[in-house]
Amino acid sequence: MNSAEPIERLTDEASLQLDERGHLCHLLTLKGLERPLMTEILDDAENYLTAPGDLPARSRSMVGRTVANLFFEPSTRTRASFDLAGKRLGADVLNLDVNTSSRKKGESILDTIYTLEAMQVDVMVVRDASAGVPAYIARHVQPHVSILNAGESDVSHPTQGLLDVLTIRQHKGIFENLAVAIVGDIRHSRVAMSAAQALTTLGVGELRLISPPVMAPDPDAVPGARIMDNLGDGLEDADVVMALRIQRERIGNLDGIPGIDEYFANFGISHESMKRAKPDAIVMHPGPMNRGIEIEGSLADGPNSVITQQVTNGVAVRMAVLDRVSKTMATRN
Amino acid sequence: MNSAEPIERLTDEASLQLDERGHLCHLLTLKGLERPLMTEILDDAENYLTAPGDLPARSRSMVGRTVANLFFEPSTRTRASFDLAGKRLGADVLNLDVNTSSRKKGESILDTIYTLEAMQVDVMVVRDASAGVPAYIARHVQPHVSILNAGESDVSHPTQGLLDVLTIRQHKGIFENLAVAIVGDIRHSRVAMSAAQALTTLGVGELRLISPPVMAPDPDAVPGARIMDNLGDGLEDADVVMALRIQRERIGNLDGIPGIDEYFANFGISHESMKRAKPDAIVMHPGPMNRGIEIEGSLADGPNSVITQQVTNGVAVRMAVLDRVSKTMATRN
Amino acid sequence: MNSAEPIERLTDEASLQLDERGHLCHLLTLKGLERPLMTEILDDAENYLTAPGDLPARSRSMVGRTVANLFFEPSTRTRASFDLAGKRLGADVLNLDVNTSSRKKGESILDTIYTLEAMQVDVMVVRDASAGVPAYIARHVQPHVSILNAGESDVSHPTQGLLDVLTIRQHKGIFENLAVAIVGDIRHSRVAMSAAQALTTLGVGELRLISPPVMAPDPDAVPGARIMDNLGDGLEDADVVMALRIQRERIGNLDGIPGIDEYFANFGISHESMKRAKPDAIVMHPGPMNRGIEIEGSLADGPNSVITQQVTNGVAVRMAVLDRVSKTMATRN
Repeated sequence: MNSAEPIERLTDEASLQLDERGHLCHLLTLKGLERPLMTEILDDAENYLTAPGDLPARSRSMVGRTVANLFFEPSTRTRASFDLAGKRLGADVLNLDVNTSSRKKGESILDTIYTLEAMQVDVMVVRDASAGVPAYIARHVQPHVSILNAGESDVSHPTQGLLDVLTIRQHKGIFENLAVAIVGDIRHSRVAMSAAQALTTLGVGELRLISPPVMAPDPDAVPGARIMDNLGDGLEDADVVMALRIQRERIGNLDGIPGIDEYFANFGISHESMKRAKPDAIVMHPGPMNRGIEIEGSLADGPNSVITQQVTNGVAVRMAVLDRVSKTMATRN
Repeated sequence: MNSAEPIERLTDEASLQLDERGHLCHLLTLKGLERPLMTEILDDAENYLTAPGDLPARSRSMVGRTVANLFFEPSTRTRASFDLAGKRLGADVLNLDVNTSSRKKGESILDTIYTLEAMQVDVMVVRDASAGVPAYIARHVQPHVSILNAGESDVSHPTQGLLDVLTIRQHKGIFENLAVAIVGDIRHSRVAMSAAQALTTLGVGELRLISPPVMAPDPDAVPGARIMDNLGDGLEDADVVMALRIQRERIGNLDGIPGIDEYFANFGISHESMKRAKPDAIVMHPGPMNRGIEIEGSLADGPNSVITQQVTNGVAVRMAVLDRVSKTMATRN
Repeated sequence: MNSAEPIERLTDEASLQLDERGHLCHLLTLKGLERPLMTEILDDAENYLTAPGDLPARSRSMVGRTVANLFFEPSTRTRASFDLAGKRLGADVLNLDVNTSSRKKGESILDTIYTLEAMQVDVMVVRDASAGVPAYIARHVQPHVSILNAGESDVSHPTQGLLDVLTIRQHKGIFENLAVAIVGDIRHSRVAMSAAQALTTLGVGELRLISPPVMAPDPDAVPGARIMDNLGDGLEDADVVMALRIQRERIGNLDGIPGIDEYFANFGISHESMKRAKPDAIVMHPGPMNRGIEIEGSLADGPNSVITQQVTNGVAVRMAVLDRVSKTMATRN
């Protein structure tokens, strides 16, 4: 789904992820996920955090349940994060590399889903390069199966959005007075879309989406956001600066898209460009980073960077979501 | 092994899978597996079934044991089914993608087996594109190691055969009065061979193998079966109709093999062709399906279809077989 | 790191793997690992051995901990060995095939490491084709994370060295009077380097490194070893003969490197060449074997071969090392 699609479909998707009691049964999008529920998920996630060097949080709440990681696009970090989240809750985790097998045999995506459902998989974690796939699957599974969107085309990446706002909340507390700048290829970024939706729901003071003009979002993609093409102005007094991963294959290959050096000079988050932000501004990146392109390496490793904390929060958020949808399903029967 | 090979070898293989007490220690073929033992396995499998939406059946009977999935051909569903079956019995499961590693280094298949044996793997689940490999391995492993055939060339796929007859038994009870039609590329189908062997053992009333002439089996491949090349006649009053997956790469590429449209028109299982079968005939398919080629999509999703039930039964049958061979090995020492 | 590098770096690496109390916190190299500690690890490993046909040894000592297998080079046996070792100690094991994902996205190796660290991975098992990578990583991880070298370029493969000396100790007891011959491409063999270091530490009587001249090590690579180019002389009265895997791609392709037949005739370990060794000499190979090139198949399967025992010892050694570094980390906080 992209911003050009009809609004019912969006509403539909948001309501599809709640059951008749308003409990979360799928996680498809952050658009339309209401603030109290989002806050509860973040609170749950905080309970899964432990001190560095301590053993990770664990529970037995998913013993007997099965989580399938169904990644139609390659991924290391998100797949590993869901894998560990499932295992640490006691679930059996099935990792399916769907590129190399079923799709080669021409099986339809729904037949793959029905097969996993018939194997009594409880939660399917889905990453796909096509828009609309997670919701499409959620509309077709049986009522006791949960679908979690682990990255959907350019559209959304809701667990990433949640870990981003959790990280911001840990450092900044409340959202109302914050200026958050997201910098990069906004138009093609599911990370930016989900972060923007979560921030809007949580009442962020000001949201700035900064990119070269060809990478700017549609004007109505994020209501209330400021679309900007000057990095310095965009970072002015910002509390939070999030650099997006640039797709190397896009760089320099299309009209109006700058080369690497030019990109870094104009849109790279660096010690230099951060001078315009507040001194205690935090620096974020969803990873994997292209150091020296969208972010200066020493900044990523510096004291204002919260990039590894985002990763830690990612496991916690996924545990919170897995546990929550499992509880929804368990109390539905 | 195919039907042209000497009968001793077949006898040999059937006896190889039983120990001196007649207990199952490997599952290599359904040919020669006697009816009481086959029935016991099906009964065990039924105990591993739970109601839809309930948690899957689990036990701790394989705690401390190791199952290795050794797939020399790619597979999603059979691999996943064995993976979950092992995990739900408490086993440690090792998934080896052998294409991309050992074979690249030129290691012989027996050296791979000896290595796994030395790592104290208890059960090796083997899929291979060459005939005879599972039995060859079974002849070479130590007496406490079990080999399960998870798909052997065009020869056999015994857990698939078991899940097929379990599904039929659930719907039709006894086999003696049933007319079962298997439709497709019989000649190259390990699924058809194992289903035919299981049905014959269980005393099926009539077994019809229906295909274009170039895909017909050798006349003596399935003693007692009717080899037919007309779909309508083949489905007449059938109780069970099983469509086989067509290999797209075979379609239209060889003399006498029809194109896709012609194949569907003449051999596709559809609402239209099913009119000749009994009204309560069940429709089966081993998956993954080519909708619109060997089976009409809406039929596969319709009330007479038992295709997803086959998948569920597949996990249960594999749990039953894993548990059984483990018990055989445990009582052998 | 190779033998041409400065000695401080070696010293550094050896000391890097011990904490301030002298406890093992990483396993990077056997060079400089002192005899009492090496002996303790071998003793621990023996406690993880069980009789053939018995269930493998298990413990719950790593419950709650996470082991990540991070293989930047393909591997079946070492990866499987660490996977089982971790699972049999109760750890959660994450298998990452890094070729096909992160590196495709251009992520730096340290960013991958920081990501895993942030996911609270406790032990990272690293195989890499570049020298120095395990130590480089160990220098950068947080103090509660352990790095285990699972094969480093041509430089070292310490768990392999440990399993080799454990196997020798089981058969020959003490090292002082032994003549050990290692045969093959010594120059490019991390297996030879680690075995030689372990044997030297344990006080082996005589160590012979036998190869065609172009495959001979640098003269100072293994102090005290005899570098030989005649197989017959090298095997004379040997107690232990270890054949190395030959890289097929090297054979016959470079000046001075013999073809396959010539290699087997001159450097192949065979019943014939073993006549020069002691009658009770044991035959070793790290696997995977090229039968008929570096070793005669029937000798590998014969009574003097301890090759599968090496594999069994490999799991035990890895359990001992995993357990030890986990205990070091647990008592550090």
